[in-house]
Amino acid sequence: MDRQLMIERVRAEMPERRWIHTEGVMATAILLAERYGEDPRRAELAAILHDVAKYWPTERQGSLIRDNGLSEDVLGYDKELWHQFVGAWVAEQEFGITDAGVLDAIRYHTSGRRGMSKLEKIVWLADYIEPGRSFPGVDEIRAIGEESLEKAVLAGLDGTIGFLIAKGKRIYPLTLEARNGLIEEIRGN
Amino acid sequence: MDRQLMIERVRAEMPERRWIHTEGVMATAILLAERYGEDPRRAELAAILHDVAKYWPTERQGSLIRDNGLSEDVLGYDKELWHQFVGAWVAEQEFGITDAGVLDAIRYHTSGRRGMSKLEKIVWLADYIEPGRSFPGVDEIRAIGEESLEKAVLAGLDGTIGFLIAKGKRIYPLTLEARNGLIEEIRGN
Repeated sequence: MDRQLMIERVRAEMPERRWIHTEGVMATAILLAERYGEDPRRAELAAILHDVAKYWPTERQGSLIRDNGLSEDVLGYDKELWHQFVGAWVAEQEFGITDAGVLDAIRYHTSGRRGMSKLEKIVWLADYIEPGRSFPGVDEIRAIGEESLEKAVLAGLDGTIGFLIAKGKRIYPLTLEARNGLIEEIRGN
Repeated sequence: MDRQLMIERVRAEMPERRWIHTEGVMATAILLAERYGEDPRRAELAAILHDVAKYWPTERQGSLIRDNGLSEDVLGYDKELWHQFVGAWVAEQEFGITDAGVLDAIRYHTSGRRGMSKLEKIVWLADYIEPGRSFPGVDEIRAIGEESLEKAVLAGLDGTIGFLIAKGKRIYPLTLEARNGLIEEIRGN
């Protein structure tokens, strides 16, 4: 699909403020890809599509996850986690994306997972630090991201887990696995 | 085995300061059992034995875990987690404990797990708040423990996870599952 047509179709799926966020993720993902030696076009493609299903009604997301057997365990966790699986499905089925690495970068862009690829880390981090983000601590993670992709994602996951603990919310096991895996990866380096 | 003989044998396995900790756990476990309607003798028995293997050399703990197929995944995590599995094995094999609930309270006294029994929660919490503990926040958890066993264990698990994040250490998946399970349990009440 033509890039501009894809952008128009994705933009139509979300409120304007979320499209502005998506543009921030696109720019940040390209920058991180150039910094860490990944293909910027793949990073941008995953960024364009990452939130395509975020504003779908919850019931529609839930049905699609159930009907297509997409990580059904996620239905027992926070609804914020559902759209990553739905988004990867929509990217493949409705936008014709065949690059499995791009689909995985969409599929794990909120939870993370153990053994994330470079592209997955880039999209995860871009979503966390794009210029529109302004939560406490984000500048520190941006600074870490100048030096180490892995340490920046780890710091972001630590922030996410701390936030969930403060809110009394459950933590999705993939998020814990992502963090444990990164600690091992950083130690191994 | 006679209670006094058991106490003498366990005491011989650890430095004096750890025995004093064990006495604190015994007293606290009895108190919590009385407060929450569990058998104080079972709570005390698990408390006496909970740290029996804590001062075994790491290699001996690791061999025993490997040779007996006890939750081998734990060998990839912090060594602080190993002694709970070894302790349950020792309690059964060397002290002749046959009460499966007491053995589980020993087996999960550090990590916790999803669906902990009342006895498991009591021993977990007693270990966390016994009078010898003095870390920041312990008094708040003691206070919560006057009202709700589940909320106190949850607050303790939150503290443990926060501590591990601050230290850059990995988190054992059972600990996350324990926390997620308690949130569900508290919501369900």
